[in-house]
Amino acid sequence: MLSKKEIKDIQSLSLKKHRDETKLFIAEGPKIVSELAQLIPFQIQMIYGLEDWVKQCTGLIEPSKFTIISQTELERISGLKTPNNAVAVIKQFSSVEPVIFSFALYLDTIQDPGNFGTIIRTADWFGVQNIICSTGCADLYNSKVVQSTMASIARVDVYYDEEDKWLGKQSVPKYAATLNGRPVLQFEKTNHGILLVGNESKGLRKEVVEMATEKITIPRKGSAESLNAAVASGIILSHLLS
Amino acid sequence: MLSKKEIKDIQSLSLKKHRDETKLFIAEGPKIVSELAQLIPFQIQMIYGLEDWVKQCTGLIEPSKFTIISQTELERISGLKTPNNAVAVIKQFSSVEPVIFSFALYLDTIQDPGNFGTIIRTADWFGVQNIICSTGCADLYNSKVVQSTMASIARVDVYYDEEDKWLGKQSVPKYAATLNGRPVLQFEKTNHGILLVGNESKGLRKEVVEMATEKITIPRKGSAESLNAAVASGIILSHLLS
Repeated sequence: MLSKKEIKDIQSLSLKKHRDETKLFIAEGPKIVSELAQLIPFQIQMIYGLEDWVKQCTGLIEPSKFTIISQTELERISGLKTPNNAVAVIKQFSSVEPVIFSFALYLDTIQDPGNFGTIIRTADWFGVQNIICSTGCADLYNSKVVQSTMASIARVDVYYDEEDKWLGKQSVPKYAATLNGRPVLQFEKTNHGILLVGNESKGLRKEVVEMATEKITIPRKGSAESLNAAVASGIILSHLLS
Repeated sequence: MLSKKEIKDIQSLSLKKHRDETKLFIAEGPKIVSELAQLIPFQIQMIYGLEDWVKQCTGLIEPSKFTIISQTELERISGLKTPNNAVAVIKQFSSVEPVIFSFALYLDTIQDPGNFGTIIRTADWFGVQNIICSTGCADLYNSKVVQSTMASIARVDVYYDEEDKWLGKQSVPKYAATLNGRPVLQFEKTNHGILLVGNESKGLRKEVVEMATEKITIPRKGSAESLNAAVASGIILSHLLS
């Protein structure tokens, strides 16, 4: 049985402040928890799971990392409307300033957690190893971000450029996703550079666009005012990466 | 001042049952409300707005369609965490079985409202006029769907194929988005056919894939298990449509 303190400690990880203090985060549900346990076993602090589910997980990770809980306990520690078998408490990733040898994504003030997580998942699909976030981006360890990454959080390195100076120091090609650039189909395939993607409603900041070496646009054939940031990132990566 | 009954009637539109009965739905926030008022003025039943915002809307729509409300009233009728100036009550669109002369999207059991809305917005960007939904898709008038469409809900025709018979009757090319098809880059550009996109976790149903004339795949270069359904739709539409 979980103590009141344990329950409170787990619940508190829904707040950024407590995640920052403890350097921990939460992932939920059998699929993402199992995948993370295999990908980053040493970072798993504890997996709280229903007995039936834990029994199916033999060999997934060392037994001491499982705590069997009741349905009531699961409901108390879960942040989901429909709690699903397992909640993992995981150590945050260490993050160092990246040096870009291949292709990276730079996110300017991406605020919607679902969008952010989906961008990480999309980057992972296309083999993009590094994502750099400007100040004002959502917190990587927000539970909605974690869930939308579908475990890609463990495969893509996310670096927060707290001083907004990283981009200016890079001398690789920088492709700004804008509404008034060259059509994406006109670009040569590449393995080298940074795609700059802007805020959901405001797009890229002017000073970020000014740092770009190219402006790149997905031609509009219909009438929508803009594309969702994750969809736009996926389309450009699919055309650009060789 | 709004009567208790009016407030209750508006609040009840958060439930599908009441939306089905009244044939009404809700859109919120100045941007989408203004855009819908311009696109479909005759379908707007009423716009409830804060006085300062309504004053800026002269000429947007006939004055009788505005009801000025207080911040407290706005908070009571809004479904958003952070209510934003305006709530519109709108008549639902009429829907007839579509005949496909150009390019359409068929959605198989797309259940996430945000994904569904984003797919509608993406279709609108690429000029896709028709979306056909299998049984089991989310409700078009769910407020999260409406908000994610960013007003594209007024430009794309969505048809629910309640009996799951529509697709079998179509004799145009049908492209099934799957993980084991031909790479999307190998396909010729086209203006004719239907893209079939499947459920977020299960993909397309077997019987739907069997109706396809082609299987189409976005090559994976990294390690993510799958792409988000809206991202995948956007990538395939951007490669396929001429």
